[in-house]
Amino acid sequence: MAEATAEQLAATTINDDGIVPKAEFSDRVPINSIISRADGGSGLAGKKARVGGWVKTGRKADKDAFAFLELNDGSCPGNLQVIVEAGLVAGELSQVVPTGTCVVLDGELKLPPEGAKQKVELRAEKVVHVGPVDPAKYPLPKMRLTLEFLRDFVHLRSRTNTISAVARIRNALAYATHTFFNKHGFLYVHTPIITTSDCEGAGEMFQVTTLLSEADRLEKELIHNPPPTEAEVEAARVVVKEKGEIVSQLKSAKASKKEIGAAVDELKKSKDTLSKLEERSKLKPGIPKKDDGNVDYVKDFFARQAFLTVSGQLQVESYACALSSVYTFGPTFRAENSHTSRHLAEFWMVEPELAFAELKDDMNCAEAYVKFLCQWLLDNCLEDMKFMADKFDKGCVDRLTMVASTPFVRVSYTEAVEILEEAVKNGKKFDNEVKWGIDLASEHERYLTEVKFQKPVIVYNYPKDIKAFYMRLNDDSKTVAAMDVLVPKVGELIGGSQREERYDVIVQRIKEMGLPLEPYEWYLDLRRYGTVKHSGFGLGFERMILFATGLENIRDVIPFPRYPGRADL
Amino acid sequence: MAEATAEQLAATTINDDGIVPKAEFSDRVPINSIISRADGGSGLAGKKARVGGWVKTGRKADKDAFAFLELNDGSCPGNLQVIVEAGLVAGELSQVVPTGTCVVLDGELKLPPEGAKQKVELRAEKVVHVGPVDPAKYPLPKMRLTLEFLRDFVHLRSRTNTISAVARIRNALAYATHTFFNKHGFLYVHTPIITTSDCEGAGEMFQVTTLLSEADRLEKELIHNPPPTEAEVEAARVVVKEKGEIVSQLKSAKASKKEIGAAVDELKKSKDTLSKLEERSKLKPGIPKKDDGNVDYVKDFFARQAFLTVSGQLQVESYACALSSVYTFGPTFRAENSHTSRHLAEFWMVEPELAFAELKDDMNCAEAYVKFLCQWLLDNCLEDMKFMADKFDKGCVDRLTMVASTPFVRVSYTEAVEILEEAVKNGKKFDNEVKWGIDLASEHERYLTEVKFQKPVIVYNYPKDIKAFYMRLNDDSKTVAAMDVLVPKVGELIGGSQREERYDVIVQRIKEMGLPLEPYEWYLDLRRYGTVKHSGFGLGFERMILFATGLENIRDVIPFPRYPGRADL
Repeated sequence: MAEATAEQLAATTINDDGIVPKAEFSDRVPINSIISRADGGSGLAGKKARVGGWVKTGRKADKDAFAFLELNDGSCPGNLQVIVEAGLVAGELSQVVPTGTCVVLDGELKLPPEGAKQKVELRAEKVVHVGPVDPAKYPLPKMRLTLEFLRDFVHLRSRTNTISAVARIRNALAYATHTFFNKHGFLYVHTPIITTSDCEGAGEMFQVTTLLSEADRLEKELIHNPPPTEAEVEAARVVVKEKGEIVSQLKSAKASKKEIGAAVDELKKSKDTLSKLEERSKLKPGIPKKDDGNVDYVKDFFARQAFLTVSGQLQVESYACALSSVYTFGPTFRAENSHTSRHLAEFWMVEPELAFAELKDDMNCAEAYVKFLCQWLLDNCLEDMKFMADKFDKGCVDRLTMVASTPFVRVSYTEAVEILEEAVKNGKKFDNEVKWGIDLASEHERYLTEVKFQKPVIVYNYPKDIKAFYMRLNDDSKTVAAMDVLVPKVGELIGGSQREERYDVIVQRIKEMGLPLEPYEWYLDLRRYGTVKHSGFGLGFERMILFATGLENIRDVIPFPRYPGRADL
Repeated sequence: MAEATAEQLAATTINDDGIVPKAEFSDRVPINSIISRADGGSGLAGKKARVGGWVKTGRKADKDAFAFLELNDGSCPGNLQVIVEAGLVAGELSQVVPTGTCVVLDGELKLPPEGAKQKVELRAEKVVHVGPVDPAKYPLPKMRLTLEFLRDFVHLRSRTNTISAVARIRNALAYATHTFFNKHGFLYVHTPIITTSDCEGAGEMFQVTTLLSEADRLEKELIHNPPPTEAEVEAARVVVKEKGEIVSQLKSAKASKKEIGAAVDELKKSKDTLSKLEERSKLKPGIPKKDDGNVDYVKDFFARQAFLTVSGQLQVESYACALSSVYTFGPTFRAENSHTSRHLAEFWMVEPELAFAELKDDMNCAEAYVKFLCQWLLDNCLEDMKFMADKFDKGCVDRLTMVASTPFVRVSYTEAVEILEEAVKNGKKFDNEVKWGIDLASEHERYLTEVKFQKPVIVYNYPKDIKAFYMRLNDDSKTVAAMDVLVPKVGELIGGSQREERYDVIVQRIKEMGLPLEPYEWYLDLRRYGTVKHSGFGLGFERMILFATGLENIRDVIPFPRYPGRADL
């Protein structure tokens, strides 16, 4: 959180012993509990504190008698100004000045000279720790670095103003998400990451396997310990035959039990040896194949093909059909060979699912949720939002305010197409043709929300042919009860629908779409037994962050972006 | 949440129009906002409400004039008793009675006859919806089913009392986790699921790939459209040669520009055809290999081998070394061929990481967090906890109370070994030998927490040889600043450590352990530039749920368990 919690603020005001109380699990005082107070920290002047952080900018002054450091610890976008006397540093004063240096200091908070920007500063009395930086080698010098450059340093880029602000905004949106759904009685359900279902039937999934590493292991093993030759196996077979004959001979010669027993033991041993050799002779390097040449997934970890989930929706529906109001919030995956600024191979989705709810309830929930997120950022992350407005997108704070306070427009797909056709008539040019039945393109969505209505728009009741099988068929038999929430800056933010709860209708829809029924039998059980009207939606979490921050590239709003050719760390 | 939120409770008491207000995103009133009130709902008598849920038990009475239904909607463990007159049901009254049937009803809340267990019941006035069940086919009949049996029906088992109670407890623990860390100023960081780092260097990772499906796609493509034969390629080469000769001839014959241009175009076309044929002739079915026979991962989606994460710790450390207090909470994976009741292939971990923090701060944080979780369940999930105590583990509520209120014992590893040796001297038998240097076995851990101290125990300062390379070396050069939190019932609940922040020492440790330096260069950068003391730990989320509920099998405390041979849905 960018701003100090109520608790931290209370902690910085109630003590009377002249020391600002430390954080509970550290000796230090978080910098936000000093400078994010309403008084900017001036009320703490005269008190002692230990602070730690990384130097944003440092300079020596007064003929190297002092250093002035701007110190940041990530608790808020602001820095604490610290003054360090040369005598306090064990080595050279220059050691504490470079950008990126970590320092921990004990000192006294003081009012700065009149006219200074900061409301309080720390006069160091003791240098407790220095984690130095060699500026000649440090990959993130003080100069302004492009976001693209920073993508090559995902392990260090959270030290920059922009990426740390994004981290705080992302954290706030995640916490707001849990708060919103908890407040409304939704249960958080952890849907699986590894799945054997394909939600959309669309393919483009990553496979999860141990076959490749197992093949690799076997190959190495066979080099050290090669499988037996056919001659070796044959030799072992001869031994078994011989030992068997000895047993027969002893038996027909009515030899003693002891003698026969010993010979039988010998026979058993030779049979064991043979079966082990036969087993090993079958070992083949490479991926295990069936007789038809296809990969033998029975040998894989889960005894069948397994994938990374593309959505938790189908699974979370099974919980909604028992617990009524549920949601999932987790990573999802697409193995799409897409290099755009809007696609990731790994991204996070929020997917609520409501039983006893129709499309209008779904739209009400989506609108309330998006408004709640926007208001939350205004209430809890305003400093970070102002930073984003200052550096990247002038309008981003106003956009949040507008969305938080404006009722969303709701138009049917048919109305939306009419509006777009009207626009074309009046001279608006689109790259994609507009006519009933098309899937709205991004340019159409943005026209509706940015130009026509200039506020969020929910488009509902889409043609069934462009939507998934699980969406509820409307009485017109042409459209389904689907809805998309469109917002300025990113277009589609949410996609959702009422789910088809009628067994016969959904079976018909699966067949129409040319999908096999078998993989969906468990999903059909939810309609066979105690079926219920239910609805849900998915919000792309990174899209929400792009919408909030005004950043352009999705790779900058997730800590460790994954895309074709890149999975650093 | 098992109990109604303050908001819901307020909503059920402030209205004066005789109707209990519905949930915000549905027409129904959640059952917990009726029966989980302090008065059990009696104060709502006389009010109208719409409720929906699934029949737990139903029976007909008064010569089939009425049906009594116990209705549950998952909002709490309790059921609402509903009375339905035969005339209200469109078909047979028998239709609404079977276990698992979904019904939505309008009716009036009434005080039950004296002596009844319930404090309020609903007299139906209208049946709005029936989602029927054929009891002959429904896989979950009314009889008590074993947890093992239910594992074959993960899509339906959340309709049972036990699995729905577990879902509410799991939800409460997740929400408590976010609440605790937010309250203490930690930022939630989404560490990656797909990773190219191996945290422990321990292997046993799932591989993430598109090579198998790509090979499959190519194989099918080549069947429909086989690669050219060498003769076809040779023929195309001949054509190129001929077209080239024609151009030469025309040039030396000083033909018109138009004629030469046309011949050059022909030549270009034939070259294009040839290069496409050559390209296709190189296509080989199967996994792409390098010349040395190894798999060519440059052709894989991320252009290198990629895996599912076993821990977010290393990555989250990079954020701690910038934002100070952070945590990750997400799925982690082990491709371990383990069939025990304590292992899953996919499980959730909570991993906080604190900069400016030493081992004692880490222990303080772990203790405060576990206590907070226990108190949260007592405050927010008591009905569900009482259900678990009643059905599975008599002591589970008392255990939570004890852990929430008792200071954890802290003993060094050396002291712990002395205690165990003392026990052995006094006749205690362990399967595993006790001596300084061993990794404590589960039986040792449980002896310490269950027998010796009978409360939670933190063991710290373990021998370096049994711990990971990133743990901070103590001044004795024999032990590292690691700690494990042991609790009754499950033994180890948390493992953590102070991290080695000294560049030279950690390089030495990596080498000692025989690990390569190269994959850890980014991790070493955190020590090269602005290094800081930091500490963290990991809590196995499913272990915490086992601890709370007293259930025995980890497969019952995660919605969709994954283990060798099984990944349903």
